[in-house]
Amino acid sequence: MSLRQDAEYIIHESIQKVLPDEAVRQALNDKKFNIGDLYVVAAGKAAWEMANTAASVLQDAITAGVVCTKYSHVKGEIPGMICFEGGHPVPDSNSFRGTQAALDLVSGLKKEDTVLFLLSGGGSALFEKPLIAEEELADITGQLLACGADIREMNTIRKRLSAVKGGRFAKLCEPAHVYSIVLSDVLGDPLDMIASGPAYPDSSTCADAVRIAKKYRLKLSDDARALLRNETPKYLSNVETVITGSVKDLCEAAQKACEALGYKSILLTEQLDCQAREAGAFLGAIAKSHQESKESLAFIAGGETVVRLTGRGKGGRNQELALAAAEKIAGFKDTAVFSVGSDGTDGPTDAAGGYCDGETKDVLAREGISIFDTLEENDAYHALERSGGLIITGATGTNVNDVAVLLIKR
Amino acid sequence: MSLRQDAEYIIHESIQKVLPDEAVRQALNDKKFNIGDLYVVAAGKAAWEMANTAASVLQDAITAGVVCTKYSHVKGEIPGMICFEGGHPVPDSNSFRGTQAALDLVSGLKKEDTVLFLLSGGGSALFEKPLIAEEELADITGQLLACGADIREMNTIRKRLSAVKGGRFAKLCEPAHVYSIVLSDVLGDPLDMIASGPAYPDSSTCADAVRIAKKYRLKLSDDARALLRNETPKYLSNVETVITGSVKDLCEAAQKACEALGYKSILLTEQLDCQAREAGAFLGAIAKSHQESKESLAFIAGGETVVRLTGRGKGGRNQELALAAAEKIAGFKDTAVFSVGSDGTDGPTDAAGGYCDGETKDVLAREGISIFDTLEENDAYHALERSGGLIITGATGTNVNDVAVLLIKR
Repeated sequence: MSLRQDAEYIIHESIQKVLPDEAVRQALNDKKFNIGDLYVVAAGKAAWEMANTAASVLQDAITAGVVCTKYSHVKGEIPGMICFEGGHPVPDSNSFRGTQAALDLVSGLKKEDTVLFLLSGGGSALFEKPLIAEEELADITGQLLACGADIREMNTIRKRLSAVKGGRFAKLCEPAHVYSIVLSDVLGDPLDMIASGPAYPDSSTCADAVRIAKKYRLKLSDDARALLRNETPKYLSNVETVITGSVKDLCEAAQKACEALGYKSILLTEQLDCQAREAGAFLGAIAKSHQESKESLAFIAGGETVVRLTGRGKGGRNQELALAAAEKIAGFKDTAVFSVGSDGTDGPTDAAGGYCDGETKDVLAREGISIFDTLEENDAYHALERSGGLIITGATGTNVNDVAVLLIKR
Repeated sequence: MSLRQDAEYIIHESIQKVLPDEAVRQALNDKKFNIGDLYVVAAGKAAWEMANTAASVLQDAITAGVVCTKYSHVKGEIPGMICFEGGHPVPDSNSFRGTQAALDLVSGLKKEDTVLFLLSGGGSALFEKPLIAEEELADITGQLLACGADIREMNTIRKRLSAVKGGRFAKLCEPAHVYSIVLSDVLGDPLDMIASGPAYPDSSTCADAVRIAKKYRLKLSDDARALLRNETPKYLSNVETVITGSVKDLCEAAQKACEALGYKSILLTEQLDCQAREAGAFLGAIAKSHQESKESLAFIAGGETVVRLTGRGKGGRNQELALAAAEKIAGFKDTAVFSVGSDGTDGPTDAAGGYCDGETKDVLAREGISIFDTLEENDAYHALERSGGLIITGATGTNVNDVAVLLIKR
């Protein structure tokens, strides 16, 4: 197999492992539920796939279900469930309608009943019932954005203005048991952050919320101000949570695929969040120092890098990482760096990521393309298009960050 | 031992290994020279230390010697040798005088004689005999700088305007044998680049030089123009070269020191050249993903990172790398990142580098110091001063780039 074929195999195996259906299938494997009724609530961009798999695994065991996902994400009917589509990233009345249907479903349950809660990225918007008027919620979000509040501060406020966030959904399911399967899209899997944690104890407090409101001098109605002092659940006795299909799974699957191809593999990190271009340079520097290796080596780094915008070209963080590495590995035999987003979409492009090897720089030079200039222009897509380095998978239906791999084949 | 003590031990052991005296001692270990006379020529910032060690190892075996180093780098008399100090980074008439003395020493030697050539960083300026007037050389260098020529292009031109660069010094030593000990300060140890390679075959050609002169429309005198067509040696039969005290030795010594302390160590690269801040973030991301490790781990990355200037504070690349890592490893138990320049001088400061651990962010926060703001201001020195994270070694007398280490102690 060529180096490029190795890369394609590793990418396929990694993404396969974190697809919502596979992830849900694993989490439901041999799972025994209580003797009562079983209800399904699925929320997020992968809600339909997760619910559909649950339906095919559990079949008649499911009493009823509600799916809350994004527009055009419902791919067909699911027996026994009602599917709603709503606004994302800004929730709209359709988001609220779906959420209300889910709340109706789980109200008045008995102790022996179970709510199977299937959560994925985008749930913050797609699963929401605001406790204040929609307009004021939008205004407060705008204020927080304008004053530079970070995501933790933002969530501390918003959880208290919501009937479902910050563990409140699980509270509403009581006394029923909640089995929560979470497809993680936040690095490090902080469960109270993913979709604002509807079924996870909230780590922030009312005191935090009041302090943040003061710090940024938020303009709030009396109702909103009162809500900030309404505490979220700090302990939930009825919830069991399984994280599945996270970037950790993605990286471990990549590692397994590398080993299957005969590479000795080193998993460096699943929490990479530095600049894409510099991450590529770092992997390239590792490549330089291991050229004398007698055995095939793979270095794996997962996470979600960021792009520093200096130009107006077309590209994405994965493409930029791979292209930056190409500069460093130029001329090296059987050495490649590739990086891919598990959702199949890297930046505003139709590519999932990029692939470069020791020949890429030369190929581009012959076309008159400078890697340095291309990176300054943030135009990796067009360069990779010319070098044959675009990785195209199409939308995968999952979103658990990215994985970058350095291969040295011997 | 505390984590900080581990760091100090690793730093001490690593730098010790690449000090000029230790490096020369190793390279001369059991070395047998020809039966003829033995002459020493030492050039560069570490020339005095290298020559002094050679004198103490070889003693009476040395016939005579010349040392060409920088102002105030001569620390005393060396029996049998004449020491010259000259200008650096811009050569001056004292640089030329020292170089001429060396050339006089090696002229008219016999086949059975040996020239022990001790080369270190800074040799480009400190060991030079221009073939054109000093003023024109300065003018051409200025033109090349102004038009953005890279270091390889610059050297291709300058080698041809020099009587000693690009292998010409070794040619002048013929028919004597040249034993060259090189203390490397260029990543990847390209021997024709270190001090412009006086005793190494030149990889650039006259055709390259003429092409570069055309590309940048250099204004040249007729003499200079003619010199560009004068080829440098492409093959040298009388030279034997040993690279010692390179960044590779520095990293391997760090690795050995880590292992001695019980850390399982992984040498990632000795050729890191990305942004300091992002390299720190990358090491921090590795730290995050290995917190569950049951064994003590060390990840080592050597090289020379760069600083992106966005502020006007005080700091250096090593201090910036460590501080950037502090943000990522905040709160982690027994986890530290440190980075140090082997010359003992990091940026325009009296520190050799920086040390940060899981507590650093908290310590700084209590002092009202934000890591993000500090990095934007390029002011790592003052932050590390407050956290007790400055690494002070004093000038070490060597310069073989930097080493950064991530420690996770269990």
